[in-house]
Amino acid sequence: MDELMWLEDFEPGQTWTTPATRMTEADIVEFGSRYDPQPFHTDPTAAVDTIFGGLVASGWHTMASMMRLFVDHGPRPAAGLVGLGVDELRFPRAVRPGDELHLVVETLGSMRSPRNPERGTIRLSLRAVNQDGEEVLTAWTTILVPARSSDETMPGGPELT
Amino acid sequence: MDELMWLEDFEPGQTWTTPATRMTEADIVEFGSRYDPQPFHTDPTAAVDTIFGGLVASGWHTMASMMRLFVDHGPRPAAGLVGLGVDELRFPRAVRPGDELHLVVETLGSMRSPRNPERGTIRLSLRAVNQDGEEVLTAWTTILVPARSSDETMPGGPELT
Repeated sequence: MDELMWLEDFEPGQTWTTPATRMTEADIVEFGSRYDPQPFHTDPTAAVDTIFGGLVASGWHTMASMMRLFVDHGPRPAAGLVGLGVDELRFPRAVRPGDELHLVVETLGSMRSPRNPERGTIRLSLRAVNQDGEEVLTAWTTILVPARSSDETMPGGPELT
Repeated sequence: MDELMWLEDFEPGQTWTTPATRMTEADIVEFGSRYDPQPFHTDPTAAVDTIFGGLVASGWHTMASMMRLFVDHGPRPAAGLVGLGVDELRFPRAVRPGDELHLVVETLGSMRSPRNPERGTIRLSLRAVNQDGEEVLTAWTTILVPARSSDETMPGGPELT
């Protein structure tokens, strides 16, 4: 987990499962008040009369919390987590105060840049799962990763650089 | 801007342009330290030696800041901004301290739920634009919206409910 990873190190099927983080009411309200001030994110009482029937975390709070788990416990690309984009981000279930979420990261594939063979992109699946094993957030993300070797015909390895 | 909107009120081509928000170095570092602790988001000095050559906002900070602009200045669906998902989220350009970003929201389309005609979904385009007119974030989002009338053959209107 602590080793830097290069383009050649990512292979489909690799999986990382992080420890859980607790989504507290205080954090949900703090994030909601700052970035997503709607009653169902900021006011436990007013939230009862909304479509959610109670306080729920902003989807962006959940996403940001999963980013923190990724940085602390996920794979460590050599140039950092340089995200180019996210696709099919879904929130299949609400996140409520006290929920404990962990993140499952899986490598879907990697591709060397045709124009810049010293780097490439990897595609990862992200799944945030609550204490009951239910998915609360799913997404695919594309991340820029430097290659260990720019020689496309050689398998990568520290001895080749 | 202050009126609640129902499914029938959304039409392709509608556009909302918000005021700008300033991405300060203090806010970038605060968000980065909490949710995305990587040198290029947390340490202006260490950031110089990274792929970005200086401090940049976490993409999730930019997204959250755009959510705030949406809540304060964008269209107001009757049930709140209940996001079902986001697609093709891209970060075409880095956001740096002092950047002033505004959000452009456009209605792409709407669809009544076949099973629950009292509601439906709308598809919106989101574009975050900096002070130089450059896009820094683009995405499509799908939002759940209640219908004013569940009668699919009738045009919606307050007098019909």
